[in-house]
Amino acid sequence: MAKRLAYLGPRGTYSEQAAIDHDREAEHVACTTIPAVVESVGKGLADQAVVPIENSLEGAVTFTLDLLIHHSDLKISGELVVPIDCNLLVDGDTKMEDIKAVYSHPQPFGQCRVYLMNNLPEAEHVASFSTAGAVEDMRNSTVPAAAISSARAAEIFSARILDPNIEDVPNNQTRFVVLGEEDHVRTGRDKTSFCFDFESDAPGTLYETLGELAKRGINLVKIESRPDRRSLGRYVFLIDLEGHRDDEHVQAALEGVRSRSSMFKILGSYPMAANSSSE
Amino acid sequence: MAKRLAYLGPRGTYSEQAAIDHDREAEHVACTTIPAVVESVGKGLADQAVVPIENSLEGAVTFTLDLLIHHSDLKISGELVVPIDCNLLVDGDTKMEDIKAVYSHPQPFGQCRVYLMNNLPEAEHVASFSTAGAVEDMRNSTVPAAAISSARAAEIFSARILDPNIEDVPNNQTRFVVLGEEDHVRTGRDKTSFCFDFESDAPGTLYETLGELAKRGINLVKIESRPDRRSLGRYVFLIDLEGHRDDEHVQAALEGVRSRSSMFKILGSYPMAANSSSE
Repeated sequence: MAKRLAYLGPRGTYSEQAAIDHDREAEHVACTTIPAVVESVGKGLADQAVVPIENSLEGAVTFTLDLLIHHSDLKISGELVVPIDCNLLVDGDTKMEDIKAVYSHPQPFGQCRVYLMNNLPEAEHVASFSTAGAVEDMRNSTVPAAAISSARAAEIFSARILDPNIEDVPNNQTRFVVLGEEDHVRTGRDKTSFCFDFESDAPGTLYETLGELAKRGINLVKIESRPDRRSLGRYVFLIDLEGHRDDEHVQAALEGVRSRSSMFKILGSYPMAANSSSE
Repeated sequence: MAKRLAYLGPRGTYSEQAAIDHDREAEHVACTTIPAVVESVGKGLADQAVVPIENSLEGAVTFTLDLLIHHSDLKISGELVVPIDCNLLVDGDTKMEDIKAVYSHPQPFGQCRVYLMNNLPEAEHVASFSTAGAVEDMRNSTVPAAAISSARAAEIFSARILDPNIEDVPNNQTRFVVLGEEDHVRTGRDKTSFCFDFESDAPGTLYETLGELAKRGINLVKIESRPDRRSLGRYVFLIDLEGHRDDEHVQAALEGVRSRSSMFKILGSYPMAANSSSE
């Protein structure tokens, strides 16, 4: 039986692209919300799940982080980096001068602001739930319309790309993580994600904690503090480091952090994406 | 002449609430995008600007951070914490059982998912650009509809709150910062925000940098790494610390960080919000 891989639908989103990039042969299961994607694994409806975690257009990514910290025991077993392309899609022979309305998720409008101002200053902007949904919304429009969406969406919904790569700042990317019951075995080029908080916020607590990594020569790839859901101003820290939790020096460092922290949770060790340049 | 205070409109958004909380007497200038809010000060159209920076429903908050890091020389001169309330708004005597469509920004749908599943399982969800815009969209609906929006929006648009506080997780808040040509003078209960990056990412670089704070007993309020816009995997660090840049020990610590970093920028010193609990 093919592996079942859950993602944030509908088809044609960047999340589907990430699911395809991760495992083309798997059965891809579209879910309607990020919690539903994550829960599908716990409920046995899927074997793994792909969720956006950094700089996504379609999912609230802090939402994914909070879910991993507070509400899920799934482990991260992989990561992927997907390029984000904003294209102006139309149906049939609609021309630039015909367009009276533009559909997309609120975020791409922000990313294509200068383009729209210069090329479609009079067009109405209409919000959609996803860049893929925008193509459907465009088709239901009562006036000639366009959608800002991916080349992949143009392909599967048979829409025409009137103008490619219309984003104001190029090289936009989204990082996704693969979630499952277990994380990944050691490959020699790995990352480990974990989170923790402190009982007290005495000066130097975080500094001393990072010392557990520094004194073992472990490279920090990313650090983030997320507001504690109980009150603004208290924080949970999230760290990505270079190495696998089975590496002896990483294991010792994680033990050191655990002994200094109040809550402590290893989110998983997994191979670093080839295009996730931390070098 | 009254001070002019720019915010992310339209009226009825949480951003307008923040502008009112910051200075009720000011002339409040609604702008359509976060960059437009920030630019209005540079162009002399406003004296100060209020923008969401953490956990906002309406602005892409990473967007605000990237703007402060890369594209603006404005200083942070204050912060505010605004409670976020999701309410089910209707027009006239529309009843729960009449509602066929619900309008809101995509984010509140995520925050009210369980409520909507239990109370309006059949209603269509329609995306709007803001929670205030959702009230207008509800009024243009061809079927009986509701909007998820703030109590403030209900008041100014004369809509009726059919059900208050429908969010699945209560105590949701957004932090806003006030931007202007200058930051704030020392009050004795201040925060300082700054950002920096490194030429190399040798293990321990960030640790040694945080040591500049720790060895002076300076409390870290928040730390965040933001992807460098040039490539995923390289990061800019943002730190909020307790104290004012005119405090002698803070000044010495900032000098220490500056000497170790490549890019270094003080975003401002400002009074800590009364309800921004870092104690």
